[in-house]
Amino acid sequence: MPFDDRGLAYGDGLFETVLVRDGVPCLWDEHLARLARGAAALGIPMPSREILEALPPRAGDGLAVLKLVLTRGSGGRGYLPPAPAEPRLRWRAAPFAPAAERWREGVRVRHCRLRLGVQPALAGLKHLNRLENVLARAEWSAPDIAEGVLCDAEGRLVEATCMNLFWWRDGAWWTPRLDRCGVAGTLREALLARGEIRETAAGPEALDAAEAICLGNSVQGLWPVVRLDDAEGRPRGRWPIGARHRMLQARAHDLLGYPVDAMKDVP
Amino acid sequence: MPFDDRGLAYGDGLFETVLVRDGVPCLWDEHLARLARGAAALGIPMPSREILEALPPRAGDGLAVLKLVLTRGSGGRGYLPPAPAEPRLRWRAAPFAPAAERWREGVRVRHCRLRLGVQPALAGLKHLNRLENVLARAEWSAPDIAEGVLCDAEGRLVEATCMNLFWWRDGAWWTPRLDRCGVAGTLREALLARGEIRETAAGPEALDAAEAICLGNSVQGLWPVVRLDDAEGRPRGRWPIGARHRMLQARAHDLLGYPVDAMKDVP
Repeated sequence: MPFDDRGLAYGDGLFETVLVRDGVPCLWDEHLARLARGAAALGIPMPSREILEALPPRAGDGLAVLKLVLTRGSGGRGYLPPAPAEPRLRWRAAPFAPAAERWREGVRVRHCRLRLGVQPALAGLKHLNRLENVLARAEWSAPDIAEGVLCDAEGRLVEATCMNLFWWRDGAWWTPRLDRCGVAGTLREALLARGEIRETAAGPEALDAAEAICLGNSVQGLWPVVRLDDAEGRPRGRWPIGARHRMLQARAHDLLGYPVDAMKDVP
Repeated sequence: MPFDDRGLAYGDGLFETVLVRDGVPCLWDEHLARLARGAAALGIPMPSREILEALPPRAGDGLAVLKLVLTRGSGGRGYLPPAPAEPRLRWRAAPFAPAAERWREGVRVRHCRLRLGVQPALAGLKHLNRLENVLARAEWSAPDIAEGVLCDAEGRLVEATCMNLFWWRDGAWWTPRLDRCGVAGTLREALLARGEIRETAAGPEALDAAEAICLGNSVQGLWPVVRLDDAEGRPRGRWPIGARHRMLQARAHDLLGYPVDAMKDVP
């Protein structure tokens, strides 16, 4: 990328990370839809579908992650965007192996100290301004803690640092609304569209009262949460893996081509 | 910059834009101090003073702007920073001419619709996550509007899109506190350290009641505000340029090597 690219200078752009199996992208329509929403919100011209369609086949055989970065390109005067912008699309594909043991055994997660700032103009988008996620992820280094749960500045649940959040209560799976901050993951979008999960506004106490919790994204699939710690590392809740996790995981993995019976042998 | 640089991927880095005259940087200690504060806050190793000192002389003769970008470099797993990080320092210098007519004639500015998200962990830093500034600056394109005034999500005055904000009231120059969001400009820092301005928390009504308003940064110097519009372009206030503006401008321009008598011929 050139030094004067606005993606580097200001984070003035978007990205997508797409699971690709033997050249075929998973949740491709959802990825394109999110990229288009972000491009419209930022006023960046969207590349043609033809250009984008050509990329997944180039990811090679087997399982890969295709990362696309779309920036506003170079130019403009300081923050003022150039008109018209000449966007820059770059991509890279790398072989990928999901953390299958986390499908089976679940994960331990913790609350983060950092609160996400409220910014409706950017909420839900996968834009390049991700310092909050970096700072949140830097709060711990213990390898047995898989993820961190984030609330916004007003104390509402939002997401994990790179996954969306789902919990079972009162006969349904819930996920936080993302109209104030957070990234609307494509797996979450697909599960919402299929009626598998519902949006709500809730504080962290909703997790304490949950009957089951999962984290998921379109690359790693769905992880049951077996333990949740507070930001100081003290246990806040434990959950055995059960049929509820198995059900949502099957729905998610069906969308991603991952094993739907990953939990089969769990006692 | 390589595709996998975290500055591009996540905005995981910092920048400085330094006014350099014949190879000599202005407000250099303030720039280095802010870069060091940002590096400490983000956990990015700070380049040696020796490496940084070598850059301004390379900006060439005459007036130039030196832009430094310090990123966390490549590596890490997703948002998780690499440990240790191998930061990447890049720079570019370009000849520069300030907008001298704005020193003399002042500027028209407007309120922005966008509200800055509150994020104390990043407040004051000149980090690479600047999409809010880009969106705010994109709210207008009329060339006779020089800047836009930004409030935070809770309605407090913060800054302009690329300048800090100063107003005269009750016998003193005031500037917003920047402990929740915003960029702490080096000119602002230098004026604070010299007791020329004071910090306060205030809403936009403070500007309506101000006897004088200025905008300033370490590259453009100080602009008197002669007209302030609301976000719909309706006039909200007008101010003649007077001795108050001239006084603060002289203090600021003395620090930057700009004319301290730019206002001399204003009626």
